[in-house]
Amino acid sequence: MRTGAEMHALVERLYPICRSITGDGVRRTLDVIGEHLALERHEVPTGTPVLDWTIPREWNIRDAYVADGTGRRVVDFAEHNLHVVGYSVPVNRRMPLAELREHLHTLPDHPQWIPYRTSYYAPTWGFCLSQEKLDALPEAEYEVVIDSTLADGGLSYAEHVVPGTVTDEVIVSCHVCHPSLANDNLAGIAVAISLAQALAETKPRYTYRFLFAPGTIGSITWLARNAERIDRVKHGLVLACAGDPGPLTYKESRRGDAEIDEVMRYVLRERPHRTVEFSPYGYDERQFCSPGFNLGVGSLTRTPYAGYPEYHTSADNPGFVSPEAMEDTLAALQDAVGVLERNRRYVNLSPYGEPQLGRRGLYDSLGGRSDAKQAQLAMLWVLNLSDGEHSLLDIAERSGLSFDVVAVAARALHDAGLVKE
Amino acid sequence: MRTGAEMHALVERLYPICRSITGDGVRRTLDVIGEHLALERHEVPTGTPVLDWTIPREWNIRDAYVADGTGRRVVDFAEHNLHVVGYSVPVNRRMPLAELREHLHTLPDHPQWIPYRTSYYAPTWGFCLSQEKLDALPEAEYEVVIDSTLADGGLSYAEHVVPGTVTDEVIVSCHVCHPSLANDNLAGIAVAISLAQALAETKPRYTYRFLFAPGTIGSITWLARNAERIDRVKHGLVLACAGDPGPLTYKESRRGDAEIDEVMRYVLRERPHRTVEFSPYGYDERQFCSPGFNLGVGSLTRTPYAGYPEYHTSADNPGFVSPEAMEDTLAALQDAVGVLERNRRYVNLSPYGEPQLGRRGLYDSLGGRSDAKQAQLAMLWVLNLSDGEHSLLDIAERSGLSFDVVAVAARALHDAGLVKE
Amino acid sequence: MRTGAEMHALVERLYPICRSITGDGVRRTLDVIGEHLALERHEVPTGTPVLDWTIPREWNIRDAYVADGTGRRVVDFAEHNLHVVGYSVPVNRRMPLAELREHLHTLPDHPQWIPYRTSYYAPTWGFCLSQEKLDALPEAEYEVVIDSTLADGGLSYAEHVVPGTVTDEVIVSCHVCHPSLANDNLAGIAVAISLAQALAETKPRYTYRFLFAPGTIGSITWLARNAERIDRVKHGLVLACAGDPGPLTYKESRRGDAEIDEVMRYVLRERPHRTVEFSPYGYDERQFCSPGFNLGVGSLTRTPYAGYPEYHTSADNPGFVSPEAMEDTLAALQDAVGVLERNRRYVNLSPYGEPQLGRRGLYDSLGGRSDAKQAQLAMLWVLNLSDGEHSLLDIAERSGLSFDVVAVAARALHDAGLVKE
Repeated sequence: MRTGAEMHALVERLYPICRSITGDGVRRTLDVIGEHLALERHEVPTGTPVLDWTIPREWNIRDAYVADGTGRRVVDFAEHNLHVVGYSVPVNRRMPLAELREHLHTLPDHPQWIPYRTSYYAPTWGFCLSQEKLDALPEAEYEVVIDSTLADGGLSYAEHVVPGTVTDEVIVSCHVCHPSLANDNLAGIAVAISLAQALAETKPRYTYRFLFAPGTIGSITWLARNAERIDRVKHGLVLACAGDPGPLTYKESRRGDAEIDEVMRYVLRERPHRTVEFSPYGYDERQFCSPGFNLGVGSLTRTPYAGYPEYHTSADNPGFVSPEAMEDTLAALQDAVGVLERNRRYVNLSPYGEPQLGRRGLYDSLGGRSDAKQAQLAMLWVLNLSDGEHSLLDIAERSGLSFDVVAVAARALHDAGLVKE
Repeated sequence: MRTGAEMHALVERLYPICRSITGDGVRRTLDVIGEHLALERHEVPTGTPVLDWTIPREWNIRDAYVADGTGRRVVDFAEHNLHVVGYSVPVNRRMPLAELREHLHTLPDHPQWIPYRTSYYAPTWGFCLSQEKLDALPEAEYEVVIDSTLADGGLSYAEHVVPGTVTDEVIVSCHVCHPSLANDNLAGIAVAISLAQALAETKPRYTYRFLFAPGTIGSITWLARNAERIDRVKHGLVLACAGDPGPLTYKESRRGDAEIDEVMRYVLRERPHRTVEFSPYGYDERQFCSPGFNLGVGSLTRTPYAGYPEYHTSADNPGFVSPEAMEDTLAALQDAVGVLERNRRYVNLSPYGEPQLGRRGLYDSLGGRSDAKQAQLAMLWVLNLSDGEHSLLDIAERSGLSFDVVAVAARALHDAGLVKE
Repeated sequence: MRTGAEMHALVERLYPICRSITGDGVRRTLDVIGEHLALERHEVPTGTPVLDWTIPREWNIRDAYVADGTGRRVVDFAEHNLHVVGYSVPVNRRMPLAELREHLHTLPDHPQWIPYRTSYYAPTWGFCLSQEKLDALPEAEYEVVIDSTLADGGLSYAEHVVPGTVTDEVIVSCHVCHPSLANDNLAGIAVAISLAQALAETKPRYTYRFLFAPGTIGSITWLARNAERIDRVKHGLVLACAGDPGPLTYKESRRGDAEIDEVMRYVLRERPHRTVEFSPYGYDERQFCSPGFNLGVGSLTRTPYAGYPEYHTSADNPGFVSPEAMEDTLAALQDAVGVLERNRRYVNLSPYGEPQLGRRGLYDSLGGRSDAKQAQLAMLWVLNLSDGEHSLLDIAERSGLSFDVVAVAARALHDAGLVKE
């Protein structure tokens, strides 16, 4: 799966499934992801302590509606799964509109859109509907049914690993807990799958771990169950909102100067983009960047969290995300991986004066003139700054040369025995 | 004493007293301050070594004048105490204007103003007068009388302490050595008294020490006599020129990044103000910030030292300072104290992942919607940055939230047992 | 030799000599320099290993030409030594223009100029000529003669030392390997000689070492042969392109914050100039700033390396450099030396409070009023910042006072026993 069209088809296929932080919707979603990637799947029982939290009861829903006196369903979960507030407790009652109203959520500013609401940790129920639909409801008595269950079960998540030559890991994390919302985060899931497939065709240096887990509680669960593995996580990205029409946005890690931050700033420089500082709200970077972990994990989105009117509404549908945008997000990620994979610190083994490049054939091997000039400069820069302090990306930034030119020069010097890792 | 009117009345009352670095004028000034604040008063005998200095002889003056051939006083100390150069030695002679001229000081650019001059450490004498008055003096012989004494005595200063719950101190220092100059520094004295009175009504955490002492030699004396106490001084402000019409000016401590510097920059940001870097001239910050002490002491003025034409002239009279300006200076000081008192470094006791705020009622307790959103963000920021490195003010600066919102959130987290000091 | 006219006369005298990285041209050049400065001269035999390099065979040339069928020399080394590619191997053949062309170098964009080309480390031969001359050559057979020798011999370089009162050294390095190119680097040689002569008239604190050596291999040779002396080199400048009409350019050392960098930034601030960051190409700063040495050596030029059209062409002739430009370069160097010589870190011996300057006569000794004010401020700044961390130049930069005023104040405080080195 590599083309935007294939990614978009996956978004459309996943869109109708009703997901929440637990339940069968997540499992069906992981089933579909599993058709593309080999997954290690996990079920963590209700009641399990995870860091400061506890795995909640599992929520499932079969049906839900508001019907009028004639039995006609005026709000129907079968039409759109956003119609029910996530984690609604069961209800089966008749009540007048006046009482029902306290459980209804609309978006007056966008009268045709259905909002997305949840109440994971406070037991209540509710329906979401368009303002227009609400305005059309006559004052009358309605039948209100939510056929849901909240029962012991488990939290589901999955991992896919692309093994590298070293055990140092790069983590790519996507939340899989949102129901029919395309950009947030089915587009992220589709792009992550494509990235994993592309990586598998290379022999990466780092081990890449893709995490498909419910937001907040899912990453907390993973962190709780992998305490002994955390030290291996050298870099990471939380991937979300990967398909909307906006430019790319990189949100820095809490550290702000982690290598992933430098890589993303470099990769995005030539593209339309925004870079924003870390803040402790948004997606699962909140957990990876909590002060106890403080991992080098940033977040890549297009338009960020809560930054577009369609965010958390029925307008975030497959029409809101485009094949082109997902391809662009994927391309940026592949560029970032390309830099990350090759970014090292070398040590000049001949640090006193310049080594004589000519006698080693390092001038002759350069080909065409303007390329040769660049390559020669790059070798001089790598030799001069390879003191163990500067990475190749640092050298590219300081010299103004491209990372590719610097990395090629470093490889040539390495092959000539002039630098070592 | 809290209103601008009360502070201005005090300025007017203190204005006629002839002060210098020693003598009865200082003692009478401390008497008046003592009507408002309980003072610990000190007399340090002439000849006492204090750091690199020695307490000088005490200067007192009864009368001084220049009289013409008819006995008419053409320059009269009784009219304005600026007419005599401070620390003038006694004189009682007749001399022609030509000889007298070498002892006369005027301000040609401001022909109606009397300048302020002193000669503390070189034995000489002189008169100050307006250029207009000088121009009107006929060439003739004059009787010149300065009925002053320079004799062993002492240097007088006083302290007022508002005790706190900790022994760490905040020092507020005002010079009390200038004669009839209203802004420099009677306004500072009045504002300091008001601040001390306001603090006494709270139960401050820090112990606040107010120092009323002659400039330079006074602070040097205090530093010399309190060597064992200096380590307690965590923050300080030298307060001067507190009543002129200009905007507030904060002069940073020598360190530039002391907590008082951060607090003042924060507090002044929303007001018209200027911030200037430390320089080793001005008021007693010179002594507190000498390299051996290097205390976190800045200086708050309105228009700074030597920054206004009326500076050190008879035009710095009670009409030059306003009740409103003194109230504004006081308000800024109270805001600064409010931040300083609450600014701490907390440690997140649950630093791995976010703690579950909902289960502790920290979301429910939030009241109205937009407040609630701010408070929630503030809690997330405090949790994320409470690693022992960041103060609440640091967190406010980084998050863009107000210090108040951050401090309230920290208090709530502290009460919930999620952070500790 | 101090005037621009004298320096320009030296440039004209050295211009005709055919120099290369080895050979008699360098020796004759050192002979001329030796008429102005006492030189310690060195000959390092072919084959000697120097760092990563080896002293090459020595190149000398007697004659070279291209002659047409009539015996007329159409390209003649005797006319201009740039006509022969440096280090050309001997040749004596007849060949058609088509074959000869592969050994001819021109500058199509500047059809009247002869380029400068060398091939030190690849054995080949060639001629350089103007595009106009090449265009005028008929297709015919030519006699091609280069009467050169490449044989064991040695590399020549020389040092001149101006002894100081300390053994810490300042190095001034000039390359002497370029043939008839005036700005690059005969002007640099002339300015260096003048600087050395001027220094000899003072009693400098630092020991100044002037190095006249071929580019790259010469400085590498010096570094290789002076390993035990390198630690003494505290500051340095590579001097080149010292006479063209452009403004001065300072290229920072690799460290960027070395004292020489601070000094040069200060000295150049009031002149037209450019400052550029270190890069590992240019002149012999490449070697001094290789990561193993990482010396505080910057480079002073007017228009820098490769930055002007005349660079490495016959248009870089004595008419391209002016007496005025060389005088200006010399003046900047003398200013820099003036700052470097006096720049120290003092320690305030009376760091608690201000010492009483008046009692030591430090106010009285000040002369005129505005000077006195500056001098007083300078003393306060020196006292305040003399904590062992700040140099006098740091103090000048922070205070906004001139280095001269600060240095005079420091001297007065030193003489009064208030600061020590």
